[in-house]
Amino acid sequence: MKRTTLYPSPAEQAQGIKATNTASSPHQAPMPDRTHIQSIFQRRHLLDLDDFSAAELRLLLEITQTMKEVLARPVRKVPALQGSTVVNLFYENSTRTRISFELAAKNLSADVVNVTASGSSVTKGESLIDTVRTLQALGADFVIMRHSQSGAPYLVAQQIRGSVINAGDGWHAHPTQALLDLFTLEEHLGSVEGRKIVILGDILHSRVARSNIWSLTTLGAEVVLCGPPTLMPPSVLESIASADDATPRRLRVEYQIERALEGADVVMALRLQKERQDAGLLPSLREYIARFGLTPQRLASANPNALVMHPGPMNEGVEIAHEVAYSDASVIEEQVTNGLAVRMAVLYALSQARQRA
Amino acid sequence: MKRTTLYPSPAEQAQGIKATNTASSPHQAPMPDRTHIQSIFQRRHLLDLDDFSAAELRLLLEITQTMKEVLARPVRKVPALQGSTVVNLFYENSTRTRISFELAAKNLSADVVNVTASGSSVTKGESLIDTVRTLQALGADFVIMRHSQSGAPYLVAQQIRGSVINAGDGWHAHPTQALLDLFTLEEHLGSVEGRKIVILGDILHSRVARSNIWSLTTLGAEVVLCGPPTLMPPSVLESIASADDATPRRLRVEYQIERALEGADVVMALRLQKERQDAGLLPSLREYIARFGLTPQRLASANPNALVMHPGPMNEGVEIAHEVAYSDASVIEEQVTNGLAVRMAVLYALSQARQRA
Amino acid sequence: MKRTTLYPSPAEQAQGIKATNTASSPHQAPMPDRTHIQSIFQRRHLLDLDDFSAAELRLLLEITQTMKEVLARPVRKVPALQGSTVVNLFYENSTRTRISFELAAKNLSADVVNVTASGSSVTKGESLIDTVRTLQALGADFVIMRHSQSGAPYLVAQQIRGSVINAGDGWHAHPTQALLDLFTLEEHLGSVEGRKIVILGDILHSRVARSNIWSLTTLGAEVVLCGPPTLMPPSVLESIASADDATPRRLRVEYQIERALEGADVVMALRLQKERQDAGLLPSLREYIARFGLTPQRLASANPNALVMHPGPMNEGVEIAHEVAYSDASVIEEQVTNGLAVRMAVLYALSQARQRA
Repeated sequence: MKRTTLYPSPAEQAQGIKATNTASSPHQAPMPDRTHIQSIFQRRHLLDLDDFSAAELRLLLEITQTMKEVLARPVRKVPALQGSTVVNLFYENSTRTRISFELAAKNLSADVVNVTASGSSVTKGESLIDTVRTLQALGADFVIMRHSQSGAPYLVAQQIRGSVINAGDGWHAHPTQALLDLFTLEEHLGSVEGRKIVILGDILHSRVARSNIWSLTTLGAEVVLCGPPTLMPPSVLESIASADDATPRRLRVEYQIERALEGADVVMALRLQKERQDAGLLPSLREYIARFGLTPQRLASANPNALVMHPGPMNEGVEIAHEVAYSDASVIEEQVTNGLAVRMAVLYALSQARQRA
Repeated sequence: MKRTTLYPSPAEQAQGIKATNTASSPHQAPMPDRTHIQSIFQRRHLLDLDDFSAAELRLLLEITQTMKEVLARPVRKVPALQGSTVVNLFYENSTRTRISFELAAKNLSADVVNVTASGSSVTKGESLIDTVRTLQALGADFVIMRHSQSGAPYLVAQQIRGSVINAGDGWHAHPTQALLDLFTLEEHLGSVEGRKIVILGDILHSRVARSNIWSLTTLGAEVVLCGPPTLMPPSVLESIASADDATPRRLRVEYQIERALEGADVVMALRLQKERQDAGLLPSLREYIARFGLTPQRLASANPNALVMHPGPMNEGVEIAHEVAYSDASVIEEQVTNGLAVRMAVLYALSQARQRA
Repeated sequence: MKRTTLYPSPAEQAQGIKATNTASSPHQAPMPDRTHIQSIFQRRHLLDLDDFSAAELRLLLEITQTMKEVLARPVRKVPALQGSTVVNLFYENSTRTRISFELAAKNLSADVVNVTASGSSVTKGESLIDTVRTLQALGADFVIMRHSQSGAPYLVAQQIRGSVINAGDGWHAHPTQALLDLFTLEEHLGSVEGRKIVILGDILHSRVARSNIWSLTTLGAEVVLCGPPTLMPPSVLESIASADDATPRRLRVEYQIERALEGADVVMALRLQKERQDAGLLPSLREYIARFGLTPQRLASANPNALVMHPGPMNEGVEIAHEVAYSDASVIEEQVTNGLAVRMAVLYALSQARQRA
């Protein structure tokens, strides 16, 4: 992945979009230029990656690289979003995702307000729309939203002048997770183009899988979905096959894990919710582990330098063996670290995209 | 409502009470002068509006206007409360009120700490007084308090050197709601003096109604209370009739909605808690709607330009019809927006009032 | 306790470690010099005080004094931790301790993220280690941790590159509480050396007692433990008697309260959890009060100027009588106030200790 070589415009310099503590960070990357961002990226929301162009994805990766350099400074704070309000609106618990967005926003000097279903009146019948209208009236610039229902962030995006960032909606989409996966892969592989990437496990219920399929195939990777037939949604293949865009996409299903992993460059294991067993979608956890658990033996059939990913939190010993999760092949901790930079990049790009030239 | 034309004193200019990003806000209003504030407003707490003079109310409206202009800037942050600590102490859930105060404090650069009954040891037997003594010892400058018991903020105000702001106590008072209602009305009407304002619904349990009655009658409005007799507290009329002040107040009760609305300039519908029905205070929800629901037909008997208000959250289809809530007459979303500016104004006025000249 | 007379180094001055609002605080104390701190204090974590030298304790008291002066300024904020991330990871509720750390970190301009067991996915099976790995990957500089299991912060300290501060773990340790107790005592007594300090009550379950025993005996106080035999852990005496250090420690047990209090300079009453009774460790609450409650009559056998302490929250009328808790002898509110300065000092010392010269 190439580093951006753009310099800040005089307008941006005047706006103070630079490190707060310049003395201690002499080699800082310049923040990407607004005109450049707006020439590629004209979105108000980040809801899914299904309609992202390759150029948009690459722009977000570039900005992420700059943010990663900000995070390496002694003072990890830039004033880019000073005076902006970011609301974390979480109707499902997720400590890791909430913290990641909260720190991303604070690193950009935004003010952050947390609203969670527990501990707030959202549990007491204030409807989603009512809450969102309140946020709108209070001038929220960004609403970061996690919800158990697919599509809920789209509903919110229609009601609000600010930007909505989907932090996971039902089984549908989790675009910042897919972006951080993409960034992590390109850091290691240079490019995902032409690489064989296996997504392993419960595809049916996975918003992570869905968003990754869009971004990875858009950038030319070959995506292989592998899991038990009861956890494999035929609709995904169909919807992607019928996607109304010019991108040729390489995506297929493979039910036999050894065949799926053969020659793979990347294996992304998905969390298996133990509730799936109660729902009758699995014969037993034991059988799932026996047939689809990512063990060192199975990983041996992938490429020698294959990378192992997991969106977390892991069920060690179920979808992934402990030895695999903590092997040299694993980039799981890097995924979390890169998530912070990706979320800073998304906030920054959206804030730049909607400002007038 | 007139804009303040005061200029900041040299002392204030030196203190940096100005926009952080002056370059992008050339037409900003000056922050009201401390001497001016102290000449009118000498309070340490905001507990209710029952003893507020007209001059005090007008001063808070003036400061609110300035804050509203701050909120229109690209960077909505002023350093007025930098280094101050604001504690949101919420014993009742209220997402909207908590967020409004949290953003108001952050826009003034204060540090904000949230303490809620759920998720804190206040549920585990730490008494209110013990918690407040801790906040006192930790140097809290402002305690913003929501409590289900009427009078609780008065108890706290006796224990603490900082300022207490009542964010709603039981059925008693909700002064910032009444201030934002007043500000919204004066923005539209110029002045509430001589206007007919109907407060409609469950007056008995409404702290919003109580605080509004004081502020509106102080500024010369005619307030008409309308609702079923079981939800109408005779004590309100009595306490106001016997108020030990020189203000002549125009307040009356009207049980028949058509007569109440006739020629009204403003209709403020109150939330009807559905629990009231279980408590036997309503024959049925259906009958309440039939007799007191604010419908387009009923609103037609008010003045042609009558304004519709609601403190939120609404039960659409109960106390207010959907068509009314989202009609051109409705200023409900503006109320929320103005709430942010009002809360900034209250925090600012209290901080200025207690500083030595 | 002596005030530090050190001046900031040019490097620190350049770094901006000074008040944000210097104009209004002309007599500020200089922040302690990093070289001086590093010459005495080389720790990455604060887990317990059991291995602290007298010099380390005195250094933290010195820095606390400086922080107390910062807290006396109109603007209580210094930029020492700007751009740093502090995570409050509380697996047990404690409003007062959480707020104290949160304000301490914010006063040092750090960004603070709260993670509590209720309202987060830590309750839903995300393991402690998984959560901590996430915080590590997100670059948390400080993890402030409260946990019901003794030793949990040690486990976390092994997993993380940042600093762990123990905010109370099971019955084991509560080092910042012991530091604030020590600071409060030395403010009043000049030095604890040679003073008789009685710790009264449920020693067995008290992390406060354990940490205080270490710090007080290290600085030469005579510590007398007093309480019912069922709530007195013989292991404490043994572990301290066998401590592998050169410090001679004066510690003994006294089961008879009048004898314990005789000539005492300080009485520290501990909270009695009412659950102890259900567990069969107390014959009855009434009998406990009769035999060990700190009453004015009993306090009369202590020194005339004896100080009364309590870590809070108090059960008034149980381990301590109301008249004692609010008498002139009581320094209980000061303890809370000093807690804020102590926590600022601990954060500052750890941040300085780990920076390269």
